[in-house]
Amino acid sequence: MARTIVFDVNETLLDLTALDPLFERAFGRSGVRREWFAQLLQSAFVSIITDSYADFGTIGRAALHMVAQRNGIELEAADRDAILGTMRELPPHPEVPAALERLRDAGLRLAALTNSTDDVATAQLTNAGLTPLFERILSADSAHRLKPAQEAYETAAAQLGGDVGDIRLVAAHAWDIAGALRAGAAAAFVARPGMVLDPLAPAPDIVGSNLEEVATRIIEVELP
Amino acid sequence: MARTIVFDVNETLLDLTALDPLFERAFGRSGVRREWFAQLLQSAFVSIITDSYADFGTIGRAALHMVAQRNGIELEAADRDAILGTMRELPPHPEVPAALERLRDAGLRLAALTNSTDDVATAQLTNAGLTPLFERILSADSAHRLKPAQEAYETAAAQLGGDVGDIRLVAAHAWDIAGALRAGAAAAFVARPGMVLDPLAPAPDIVGSNLEEVATRIIEVELP
Repeated sequence: MARTIVFDVNETLLDLTALDPLFERAFGRSGVRREWFAQLLQSAFVSIITDSYADFGTIGRAALHMVAQRNGIELEAADRDAILGTMRELPPHPEVPAALERLRDAGLRLAALTNSTDDVATAQLTNAGLTPLFERILSADSAHRLKPAQEAYETAAAQLGGDVGDIRLVAAHAWDIAGALRAGAAAAFVARPGMVLDPLAPAPDIVGSNLEEVATRIIEVELP
Repeated sequence: MARTIVFDVNETLLDLTALDPLFERAFGRSGVRREWFAQLLQSAFVSIITDSYADFGTIGRAALHMVAQRNGIELEAADRDAILGTMRELPPHPEVPAALERLRDAGLRLAALTNSTDDVATAQLTNAGLTPLFERILSADSAHRLKPAQEAYETAAAQLGGDVGDIRLVAAHAWDIAGALRAGAAAAFVARPGMVLDPLAPAPDIVGSNLEEVATRIIEVELP
């Protein structure tokens, strides 16, 4: 039976560059959005390693505070709220809606799995117009272990009624691909600009430069 | 009894900016050294989370490959070797030798604890002229769990003949401070330019803007 296709959300489906003007207004220079998201990930990984759970939204807010302090800026509450609010209203990358429709119309089960909380994930995918395409919207928050911890993938697979070997994670991040493969899932990497795989991690059997290419390969591999 | 003072090495004692000209030559622009070290840390954290140990040197080499690929560059072997070789020859930050001497002369036991392998750590501290100041040079490699995993701090404390509560970690990285405190050690943060603490983690009782300030406070707290 074909695996259930499970999509990471931020950067994989949704375009974080929509935040750039807000970061430019708040920090006076571009590039800080990447610095923030990198800090958010680093802080999330430290919370996993040190077994000190916090939800992704709380970590994101703290990471914003760290980046402001690092840049010597007192971040206005209005700027902070605009950034965190706009995280709920990111547009999909252009090819995403049609690629997801193709996969669904081919008969595959589709789900989302994000480190964002359920609340944020549902708002994000609803605002992006993608909710009807997913059977389930899942958050690693329900496992209280964020991706790339194996419990995040195992809990998601269980919520979908199967084992971790029954899912294929689709993501634009090397760390998410490494976590999924090491947990026993299949994976597919979306090599968006600037995204590269980790040569020390197992390699996914599907790689494409956008979701359209990845969808074509998923249909070939999962529905031969 | 006073705690043993355990120092992180890269960025805390040694100055990574010595690598900048090499990155500028290899990549044609500045800033890539920070991108590389951030990727090195991210890959190391993923290896801890997914329980797939690799030593820090191996991860550093893979991270260099990732950063080259991300920047669309074929990294010459000579440039790669120059960067990795220079990691062994970093100068100390200017105030470091005198601050370490003060702590030692005050009667405190000093050790180094780094994610670098023993081999690299010994070369680094020898080339920086700091080896005679340390009772032991320790690597998280011997625990096969890198910092900030608690096993790294626990193993180091055991190698020094005590418990994790008997050591105080000194570091310029929020993630190292968070790991040490959550493992049960004391900590001291060196707030070098651009370095900030994580507001979600416990706060260390000692913070200073360089090692001289931190050393003064350590002597006050540990040898009252």
